[in-house]
Amino acid sequence: MLVKTPPPPYYAVIFSSLRADDDPAYHETALRMVELASNQPGFLGMESARNEVGITVSYWENEEAIRQWKRQTEHLDAQQSGRKSWYSAYAVRVCRVERAYEFG
Amino acid sequence: MLVKTPPPPYYAVIFSSLRADDDPAYHETALRMVELASNQPGFLGMESARNEVGITVSYWENEEAIRQWKRQTEHLDAQQSGRKSWYSAYAVRVCRVERAYEFG
Repeated sequence: MLVKTPPPPYYAVIFSSLRADDDPAYHETALRMVELASNQPGFLGMESARNEVGITVSYWENEEAIRQWKRQTEHLDAQQSGRKSWYSAYAVRVCRVERAYEFG
Repeated sequence: MLVKTPPPPYYAVIFSSLRADDDPAYHETALRMVELASNQPGFLGMESARNEVGITVSYWENEEAIRQWKRQTEHLDAQQSGRKSWYSAYAVRVCRVERAYEFG
């Protein structure tokens, strides 16, 4: 299922990453982060896929919702583990969605 | 490898999709579209991954570059085949990247 979002403007966070190892705790934490993000105020949805590169895009009502999610306590711990163990590299891009259209 | 982009602002197009079938022409066209996009003025890079959902994010210097790519002739043909045969659903979101940071 694709995420359904309201008409723009809203915000997207594009998280692109390369994995460093296959620590089983990664998968558990990744699932927990989806659960936690879904309960944050202003969360609109999330889509993920991974082959060589992993891409997770989360959608948010506004920038304040993104700031709150970035500072969420368990998420801060996960960010630290991400840098220490799980990713060899990542990029985070905070974007304002200006136009959107869909098919199907 | 992750895409290297200049400091914001620049633009991102998030293309999320669900595949409809496994037409071999799809893969050939997908590779051709990467090649073509890479030669468009204002192209900054592209990242893709697919599991259940496919996500392709392309990065562009400005909105005019995105408009030109959308109207590119072979790309218009591919868009038509996409709606006719390759995707059961997709969403396109045009975004202004406002902040970005990276690790590794």
